[in-house]
Amino acid sequence: MAHIAVPAGVPGIRSLALFRPETAKPLYELAQVLLREPSSLSPAERELIAVHVSTRNGCVFCASSHAAAARELFGEGRAVVDEVIAGGAPAELSPKMKALLVIAGQVQQSGRAVTPEAVAAARAQGAVDREIHDTVLIAASFCMFNRYVDGLDTLTPTDPQAYAVMGRRLSTAGYAPPKPA
Amino acid sequence: MAHIAVPAGVPGIRSLALFRPETAKPLYELAQVLLREPSSLSPAERELIAVHVSTRNGCVFCASSHAAAARELFGEGRAVVDEVIAGGAPAELSPKMKALLVIAGQVQQSGRAVTPEAVAAARAQGAVDREIHDTVLIAASFCMFNRYVDGLDTLTPTDPQAYAVMGRRLSTAGYAPPKPA
Repeated sequence: MAHIAVPAGVPGIRSLALFRPETAKPLYELAQVLLREPSSLSPAERELIAVHVSTRNGCVFCASSHAAAARELFGEGRAVVDEVIAGGAPAELSPKMKALLVIAGQVQQSGRAVTPEAVAAARAQGAVDREIHDTVLIAASFCMFNRYVDGLDTLTPTDPQAYAVMGRRLSTAGYAPPKPA
Repeated sequence: MAHIAVPAGVPGIRSLALFRPETAKPLYELAQVLLREPSSLSPAERELIAVHVSTRNGCVFCASSHAAAARELFGEGRAVVDEVIAGGAPAELSPKMKALLVIAGQVQQSGRAVTPEAVAAARAQGAVDREIHDTVLIAASFCMFNRYVDGLDTLTPTDPQAYAVMGRRLSTAGYAPPKPA
C-alpha cells in the first residue's frame, strides 16, 4: 500500500498523476520532450538511458516499464536492453551511445561525479552538445522519477505481462498523463 | 566553463534554460507549481525543503539561490535557513515541518530510503497526504535540478550578492524561464 491515498490498483507514477494532476502535467511533458520528440538520439537509445539509471537506483517499476518500452523500440536488437541492465556495454551499441551511458551513470551518483574526461570521451565518439545535455537531463530526471515512485511506495506490479503492456503503450503513444476514471 | 556551450556569464540552470527552452518550459512549470502555487505549506517552508536537499547533494548554486529565496520569504525568521543548512532542526519550525524535512532527507538518499515510520511521524504531527506527496516530489525534483546544474558544470557565482539578487527575484516573481537576450 502506498504511503498516501492514491487510486487502488493503478501502478507507479500513474497513480501519483491521478492524485496530483497539476504536477503530472509538467512531469509528463518533460518525459515526452526528452524521450520522444525529435533528437539525433533515437527513442530506443533515450529509453536505454532511463533503464540504466533506474536500474542503478533500484527502482523496479521504472526500470521494468522503460525496459519494456526499450525492447519494443529496439525490436530485433532488443537483447541490448538486458545487457545494459546486467551492467554491460553491448557491442551492438554505437561507441557514442556507450560513452553517453557512462555519463548517465555518473549523473546517477551525483551531478558532481560527472568528469571532464567522460564528456571528452563522448565528444571523441561524435557526441554533440545537445546529446550531452539531453543525456545528463534524462539521467537527472530519472533520479527524480525513481525517487518519486519509490519514495511514496507506489504499486509495483510483479507480473512481467503488466510491463509488456506498458512497454507497448509507451512505445506507440508516448507520455501523456492518465485520464481520471 | 560548462561542459556544453551555454551563454557566457549566465549562472546555473538559467544558462541551460537558454540552451534548451523546450525542456526549460516543463522544468520551470514544475518548480512554480511545487514551490509557489497555493498549498498548506508556505512558499518559505517549501523553499526550505529545496535548500535541505540541495545542501545534502552539495549543489552550491541551488543551495545558495534557494537559501536566498527562503531568507526573503521567512523575513524576520530567516535564521532557520542557516540552521537547516547546518543540519539542525530549528525550534522555530513547526513539528510537522521538521518531520517533513526528515522525509525529504530520506528521499535525497533514495526513494527506497523513505520509511513508513518517518511518514507516520509526519502524520502524527498533522501532515496530510498532499503535504507528504509534495515534500517527496520537491525533494525528488531537487535531486534532478542539482544533478542537471552540476552534471553540466554550469557557472556557480561565488559572490553572495549574486544570490541575494536571485533570492529577491525568486521570492517576488517566482519561477519563469529566462527570456533570450
